[in-house]
Amino acid sequence: MPRTAPALHLALTLPESDLPLRHRVADALVSAIRDGRLRSGDPLPATRVLATHLAVSRGAVVAAYDELVAAGYLRARGGAGTFVAPEADRAAAAGVASHVRPTATPASGTAPRTPPLRWDLRPGRPDSSLIDPVAWNRAWRAGARPTPADNASAGPLHADLRRALAEHLRRSRGIPADPEELLVVPGVAATLHALTPALGLAGRVVAVEDPGYAEALTAFEVAGARTRAIPVDDDGLDPARLGDDVAAVYVTPAHQFPLGARMPVGRRADLLAWAERTGGLVVEDDYDGEFRYDVSPLPALRSLPGAAAHVLYVGTASKLLSPGLRVAWLLPPAHLRESLRIALEQRGLVVNEVTGAALAHFVGSGALVAHHARAARTYAARRAAVVAALARHLPGLRLLGVEAGLHLVVDLDDEVDDLALVGRLAALGVGVAPLSAYCTAYPRTGLILCYASLPESQADAAVRAITRVLDGIP
Amino acid sequence: MPRTAPALHLALTLPESDLPLRHRVADALVSAIRDGRLRSGDPLPATRVLATHLAVSRGAVVAAYDELVAAGYLRARGGAGTFVAPEADRAAAAGVASHVRPTATPASGTAPRTPPLRWDLRPGRPDSSLIDPVAWNRAWRAGARPTPADNASAGPLHADLRRALAEHLRRSRGIPADPEELLVVPGVAATLHALTPALGLAGRVVAVEDPGYAEALTAFEVAGARTRAIPVDDDGLDPARLGDDVAAVYVTPAHQFPLGARMPVGRRADLLAWAERTGGLVVEDDYDGEFRYDVSPLPALRSLPGAAAHVLYVGTASKLLSPGLRVAWLLPPAHLRESLRIALEQRGLVVNEVTGAALAHFVGSGALVAHHARAARTYAARRAAVVAALARHLPGLRLLGVEAGLHLVVDLDDEVDDLALVGRLAALGVGVAPLSAYCTAYPRTGLILCYASLPESQADAAVRAITRVLDGIP
Repeated sequence: MPRTAPALHLALTLPESDLPLRHRVADALVSAIRDGRLRSGDPLPATRVLATHLAVSRGAVVAAYDELVAAGYLRARGGAGTFVAPEADRAAAAGVASHVRPTATPASGTAPRTPPLRWDLRPGRPDSSLIDPVAWNRAWRAGARPTPADNASAGPLHADLRRALAEHLRRSRGIPADPEELLVVPGVAATLHALTPALGLAGRVVAVEDPGYAEALTAFEVAGARTRAIPVDDDGLDPARLGDDVAAVYVTPAHQFPLGARMPVGRRADLLAWAERTGGLVVEDDYDGEFRYDVSPLPALRSLPGAAAHVLYVGTASKLLSPGLRVAWLLPPAHLRESLRIALEQRGLVVNEVTGAALAHFVGSGALVAHHARAARTYAARRAAVVAALARHLPGLRLLGVEAGLHLVVDLDDEVDDLALVGRLAALGVGVAPLSAYCTAYPRTGLILCYASLPESQADAAVRAITRVLDGIP
Repeated sequence: MPRTAPALHLALTLPESDLPLRHRVADALVSAIRDGRLRSGDPLPATRVLATHLAVSRGAVVAAYDELVAAGYLRARGGAGTFVAPEADRAAAAGVASHVRPTATPASGTAPRTPPLRWDLRPGRPDSSLIDPVAWNRAWRAGARPTPADNASAGPLHADLRRALAEHLRRSRGIPADPEELLVVPGVAATLHALTPALGLAGRVVAVEDPGYAEALTAFEVAGARTRAIPVDDDGLDPARLGDDVAAVYVTPAHQFPLGARMPVGRRADLLAWAERTGGLVVEDDYDGEFRYDVSPLPALRSLPGAAAHVLYVGTASKLLSPGLRVAWLLPPAHLRESLRIALEQRGLVVNEVTGAALAHFVGSGALVAHHARAARTYAARRAAVVAALARHLPGLRLLGVEAGLHLVVDLDDEVDDLALVGRLAALGVGVAPLSAYCTAYPRTGLILCYASLPESQADAAVRAITRVLDGIP
């Protein structure tokens, strides 16, 4: 049986190391398990408590807990919090933390599994079942038709795909791009990890949105950039808060991740003026910029006059088609293109030939336009259904980011423990993400809910399950 | 017209920076171009001369030249050496070095192209035309049959591929592996770049072979490990030269890259004893271990008793099928598996679903076994033809590494400038690689020649072209 929370009695100290904070937090926890200060079945302190205790960001503690859950040291038990896993002490005794060699995994060898979700509304999940299987299979058949030997004697890699994507960017995002200017990359995460070394950002200040895309923050930090969290408001990131010492800023202007603001034109102009004045680079992650509802279109920041010299545009197939495709595209400023291409290739960050050719066929044949139209219609209806159900069952709830993208945010008061709510929702079969997990220096709480895969007929039932947990929460 | 070599008059100083040496060398050169100390058309100093001048490894200078050739600042002119490209001064004036922001590319915007090669014998080029197009297309059709939505509801990613690869490893490399132990990764280069952070090797000593795989050295160095070059002899790396402070060693025991030694059983046992004694990790890159000729099979190091706890095995489809496939596989020690998997996933280093399923079909259907048999037979005949032609036209030449793999090395005396030979060979349409480019602390010279794609009927003509350059060279 779990004992009472040992938060105040658990004297953790962060090990001295160059490792990222979340790894040092994970190390400290594994040490405590090894020493017997934490034993199997013990509850972990709330992330906020431990973050204060260690004087680190809550995000680092959340990330450390996630890592140790995945490695099997900890177990998340629905709404009951996080506990030291059975056998974890024996595993810890055999080694040190999960990323420092030698390392132990629990004796069972398999990570604990969470129960299956009836409604998986966690962000980043488009409905891939909307993809037309006939067009999909035809595209891959076309992509695989040339053998590797044919490809070896053909022209530059992914020329067809770059042509097709240039057309997509022009039509769908208002960006005039030459195919030769585009770089095809195996996903956004891998690219972000390479940006710091590729652009010489180590030791320099990279501004990120807070709350924001945690993987971007991690990618810059791990590679040695000095990240600075900039709070976002209802209009997204405020360029006035960017200092002149910022070398690059990572932004999501189409649909701020995760809060969902669409950055207004005035701020976009201010952002470009900042880049113009300081020489700073703007990394525009347009992750779900293809989707908007009931509002006028707002082309990508990169499409504005003068943006080409300052904005590194990042697009992806993850939301448009499927995250499992692992394809993204970059439109860098001309002066960075060649060095970026070399750095990505040197790191092996190259999309394989068949995948590139298949996507080129899917885009070039018009299948992407048809899919996008179908998906946008479907997501609009699902969004309307979930918004209506929330208004019906939980009137007065504050919703953010409903105008665009694939998810919305239920804004909660700061004293609410959204991690606990997420656990309780998971126990009811509803998967959502806690807003606090995306915060660094400016804590907020809320629930991130992706409606893209929630059929309209299920919206009411899912929202009623949410109501059981949220009712009475401020 | 090029002026005389400015080697001694060109006072280059390395900029202070945390960047890898080769980037700092590249910076220094771009600064010199910007200042006018180097002008368009000027010849660059020989890499050896500049390396001595700057007190850096020749490898760093070679890498810097390569980077600047690719970025368009420099131009390689066959046997005549390397020169500052036309317009490079104007481009340099617009920015700083190619990896530091802001960066300039030459006004033309396109990197200079080398003339096409009649015989491309550079290493790492299997003959992908041996792949049966029917089996290839069938595999991709099978891989694309489930849509992303089907995959999302299926079990763990790449389960079929891991099953098929476990069988391949057992049969072809003597390694007993459970499918669950294998990690599927998008290529060796990307994986090596992630190993240092994933295994906590930053600041620790990682030993590499010298000469060796330059990308491995770069990957460890860029990520903050302290690399130590260990000279290889006719038996590959000597474990007696590994200190107790070495945290990990990167080796290619099947066919040392590039010299081609097969590490004998005694050294393999010594290597494991070292790992056992010190707790060090052995990274076994088995890049072309599937190919051997006229010699008894030697299973992978990882297959030896006791190796499972110490050896991280790395296999790849690059030589077996095609580098354009971008798929590799890892069999890590059990205690590292989970942390490695998390680190790779966090960096987005995941093979897309269709590619994994297609390769699973290709391996599982027996097409890989058939391809391997056909390729091994073909390569054996091509190797015999090129070895015979070399013996005929250049008797007395010292050849290394002919027993296995896809390439051999022509060993040359140290005073020979192999980079210049490579340039002269390129002008005759023969592409080979200079051995010196793979050396760090222990310079050697020679030519690396991959025979995998050289038809037997062409061997004599290619070798006669080589003879025109090599005749009279010691």
